[in-house]
Amino acid sequence: MRYTAFFSERAMRALRNPGFYKFAVLVAVSGGGVVAYADAGSDHGPENMQAAAKKKLLVLGTGWAGTSFLKNLDTSVYDVRVVSPRNYFAFTPLLPSITCGTVEPRSIIEPIRKIMKKKSVPAKFYEAECYKIDPTNKKVLCRSNIGTNLDGNGEFDLEYDYLVVAMGARSNTFNTPGVPEHCHFLKEIEDAQRIRRSVMNCFEKASLPNLSEEERRKNLHFVIIGGGPTGVEFAAELHDFVREDLAKLYPNIRDLVKISLIEAGGHILTMFDKRITQFAEEKFQRDGIDVKTNFKVVRVTDKAITMTNPDTGEVNLPYGMAVWSTGIGTRPIILDLMKQIGQVIHEISILYLLWFLKIDVIIVLLSLDVLQGDRRVLATDEWLRVLGCESIYALGDCATITQRKVMEDIMAIFKVADKDNSGTLTVKEIKDVLDDIIERYPQVALYLKTKQMKDILDLLKESEGDVVKESVEIDIKRFKKALAQVDSQVKMLPATAQVAAQEGEYLARCFNKMKKCDENPEGPLRIRGTGRHRFKPFRYRHLGQFAPLGGEQTAAQLPGDWISIGHSTQWLWYSVYASKQVSWRTRFLVVSDWMRRFIFGRDSSRI
Amino acid sequence: MRYTAFFSERAMRALRNPGFYKFAVLVAVSGGGVVAYADAGSDHGPENMQAAAKKKLLVLGTGWAGTSFLKNLDTSVYDVRVVSPRNYFAFTPLLPSITCGTVEPRSIIEPIRKIMKKKSVPAKFYEAECYKIDPTNKKVLCRSNIGTNLDGNGEFDLEYDYLVVAMGARSNTFNTPGVPEHCHFLKEIEDAQRIRRSVMNCFEKASLPNLSEEERRKNLHFVIIGGGPTGVEFAAELHDFVREDLAKLYPNIRDLVKISLIEAGGHILTMFDKRITQFAEEKFQRDGIDVKTNFKVVRVTDKAITMTNPDTGEVNLPYGMAVWSTGIGTRPIILDLMKQIGQVIHEISILYLLWFLKIDVIIVLLSLDVLQGDRRVLATDEWLRVLGCESIYALGDCATITQRKVMEDIMAIFKVADKDNSGTLTVKEIKDVLDDIIERYPQVALYLKTKQMKDILDLLKESEGDVVKESVEIDIKRFKKALAQVDSQVKMLPATAQVAAQEGEYLARCFNKMKKCDENPEGPLRIRGTGRHRFKPFRYRHLGQFAPLGGEQTAAQLPGDWISIGHSTQWLWYSVYASKQVSWRTRFLVVSDWMRRFIFGRDSSRI
Repeated sequence: MRYTAFFSERAMRALRNPGFYKFAVLVAVSGGGVVAYADAGSDHGPENMQAAAKKKLLVLGTGWAGTSFLKNLDTSVYDVRVVSPRNYFAFTPLLPSITCGTVEPRSIIEPIRKIMKKKSVPAKFYEAECYKIDPTNKKVLCRSNIGTNLDGNGEFDLEYDYLVVAMGARSNTFNTPGVPEHCHFLKEIEDAQRIRRSVMNCFEKASLPNLSEEERRKNLHFVIIGGGPTGVEFAAELHDFVREDLAKLYPNIRDLVKISLIEAGGHILTMFDKRITQFAEEKFQRDGIDVKTNFKVVRVTDKAITMTNPDTGEVNLPYGMAVWSTGIGTRPIILDLMKQIGQVIHEISILYLLWFLKIDVIIVLLSLDVLQGDRRVLATDEWLRVLGCESIYALGDCATITQRKVMEDIMAIFKVADKDNSGTLTVKEIKDVLDDIIERYPQVALYLKTKQMKDILDLLKESEGDVVKESVEIDIKRFKKALAQVDSQVKMLPATAQVAAQEGEYLARCFNKMKKCDENPEGPLRIRGTGRHRFKPFRYRHLGQFAPLGGEQTAAQLPGDWISIGHSTQWLWYSVYASKQVSWRTRFLVVSDWMRRFIFGRDSSRI
Repeated sequence: MRYTAFFSERAMRALRNPGFYKFAVLVAVSGGGVVAYADAGSDHGPENMQAAAKKKLLVLGTGWAGTSFLKNLDTSVYDVRVVSPRNYFAFTPLLPSITCGTVEPRSIIEPIRKIMKKKSVPAKFYEAECYKIDPTNKKVLCRSNIGTNLDGNGEFDLEYDYLVVAMGARSNTFNTPGVPEHCHFLKEIEDAQRIRRSVMNCFEKASLPNLSEEERRKNLHFVIIGGGPTGVEFAAELHDFVREDLAKLYPNIRDLVKISLIEAGGHILTMFDKRITQFAEEKFQRDGIDVKTNFKVVRVTDKAITMTNPDTGEVNLPYGMAVWSTGIGTRPIILDLMKQIGQVIHEISILYLLWFLKIDVIIVLLSLDVLQGDRRVLATDEWLRVLGCESIYALGDCATITQRKVMEDIMAIFKVADKDNSGTLTVKEIKDVLDDIIERYPQVALYLKTKQMKDILDLLKESEGDVVKESVEIDIKRFKKALAQVDSQVKMLPATAQVAAQEGEYLARCFNKMKKCDENPEGPLRIRGTGRHRFKPFRYRHLGQFAPLGGEQTAAQLPGDWISIGHSTQWLWYSVYASKQVSWRTRFLVVSDWMRRFIFGRDSSRI
């Protein structure tokens, strides 16, 4: 009842707030309601694992997140179905290598059914595009994306008890006109194949007779828009392809080739350490790759790319091929789901008004903005559960984890720590709950580490400006002051394969031990509820990131901000990427592709 | 003058013939006219190899014939240009292996530029589609087949002194409605890739939920139309793919798969020995491949294939995927060239009427039918020169060699042999010219071999019905009678890679020694002219033919009608196909593809 009072207080405050309608109310009938479950108190589902029928677990997507989830899932416990428009998993970090034939497409893909075959009970796989998620009726609507000679056009719907959304993202064009029509993206295997064909097209077109030199130059101008890791790696691969292979086969036009890399910001590879950025920029300059920073592309036509810069104004760049790689955007189906969740919450708020004073309810008020309003991607809690949406989990590029802020929960944290209800905390009381707090709010540990503090005493000392004794009593005001800065350490996870894979593995383990953890929760203390969380929250372990720069040189930013650049790092890259392959088959193929490239070079046939 | 009289006689006969307008007149001004050159007397061109500028040699096509020609050509002697819509050579006998992923597409293709790079003076290559040959102005019109953002849409024309047409053929649909829209062909790399995708599509479609079993069966019904080597090999490959790989990945639908092979004739593989046909039919029956002989496909829609049989009438066959492989047809550009050549001859016939009695002309009358009229493909002489067309050579599937008949030239042969102009031939006189006759008319040797005769004496004996003495004198009537049957041994060459490759090599050697042979002709005596032919005529050496039947079993028909069937022949197949690869790169890749398939199976990803 304490919690009811606590949340009701927040609810009343919200009602007084003139922006109430920007807020939504989540209602959870304690003891197992049917409508919706609140955020913190709800990673206990109403589902009974003892039920005779297996729970329906539906997975959307077979990318890094989905495949990692499926590989680690005990598929015998659930009735697992997988829907994806691709019946294979692709090792996307090698996509830039495919654009130039350093590695063949089939060497980096593995059929999902083959991955599933290793399970005692394989998941059912449907090759189809999911075009609508209906969280109210717990079902998804799908459509076969292959051909039309099926009765009913290959449309079907699937029900679920748990839905795992791992659909990834699409390329973000920032609504720049002409981009979808004239630029290549680099997200799928097919994109990489198209780019490879297109590169050869440009060389063949430039070799035709009766062309002006200007026209030849235009066709051999390769423009990459976006100076992130993908764009940079593609530029490097293309440069190697041209220098090592094509220059020999097209001797007459080799000197007309130009590669330009356009970046809206001041530098390329900004997510890396400055030393890597600088090395990359210098190497590209030596290689003759034209890095144009501070240029924003405003329009693309079939003839030219138009970009602006404060100094030059609009500039037209004639081009032969353009690759757009400026980051990721949200898929329409995810946007639609986010909109629906907003609506669902709004409807519940009316329910709440009706039920408000009559029954025992736990009310959680969350700003729509915090929920799903103006986000790029689906917001989830630290257990990868979509905020405001029952039984839906989201991971990978289509989702982002919303780390609870300490300051949002500071009152509740204080109350949990204040075991004797004295209204003040002793250092011992704080230390007793510190592990749970750090587990629930990892920004606390990060803050301590950043400030090179040993423990919470140093934190109190900093805010008090004096030595803090073990015996000191701290009230809520001083507690707030001490923790005021920790939320600055809340970090968004990058949209990388590494994050997605770890999320998939984490979520699979949660599903595997769901029954066990329902009985013996292993997570941290609930701050805004009773007992413990069922699972430990997801924690990302950064293992480092590579930036191949061509010419058998790679830069790497390894854990602990260790920087490594050069030929030896390229060999590290080879060994890491070989070892990370999803099967022995792809490992063998990727390595033999590399060998083939060393011996015979890359193939320049236009298929 | 002797020849004038001889040909004039034929001309007069033609003029008396009421079907004259179906005939055309070829005029060759002796001593080097500019208009046209007659058939037999014209493999001396007017071209002077001493000229400062190199002769322009234009090659259309980079298939078996074109590539074999280019590989063997001394490219430093001519100004060589190559036009082809594909910048690579494909080892087409392995196309059926690509449809199921036994071999990867890039393992059997080699860029033309890479093949050219080994030459001291590489040929210029243009990736474009030639859409018109203009023999009057000695030029070809081409169009880039890649993209449209070139000024002038990538159209250009090229002039030539010699034109080598090696454009291959297209699939022959026999104008069956619905075939181009709904059936796959199997001629190009892209066809094989599409088939592979389509096979996987069918399996994925059949795996979707909510389908009736009938619908699943329909989607898993693979129909191959045409029981030739390609169709049979594809059926065998597909059967292996399903049995060895897909059955494990799609266990629920494995029993619904059906493969049907439809053949209009009474048997499959009719070009092979009966033992092979029988073995193949029995093996397919054991494998469950439904071989439907004596069925003619009359219509294909998106739902079903309609075929007829005298016993059953029209039968509808619902299908998931259909592959059409019933032989080859003529490309429109070749048809157009054939039509043009007819017109050119017609125009010359007017010239002939004007010049008829005024100057010394050699007139050759050839039926339009014999020339290019109702042929499937371009007719060439035994030196691969297009009949009735100056400076154009044709080889491979787009051409066929018209072997001169002995009986057409019997008068001339008699005159050449009759050195003393006695009006009769002695056996010695015949023996003196026999080697030349056999070289020019290989059917003579074939006939002797078939009849198990040792020499021409046996032939005379057969027609005389008595022993022929060396001293006997033979007049034209008895000579005609003796040779009356030999033309029955004139054989059309099959449209195979082997023929095309040998033709390419032969023609390249002719071009390489053209200067030398202009001075010292090495060919047989001219029958209807003076001196010798410049080159020996093309002679095909049959090295045998394989018919892979799946399950690691292959049938082979080797030279001398030696038949070999079974697992050991499969290993022969492996070694022959590995050794025949165009480069060490493709050899390495094909062998490693085979190894990969043995170890890991075929990939079932739908890309």
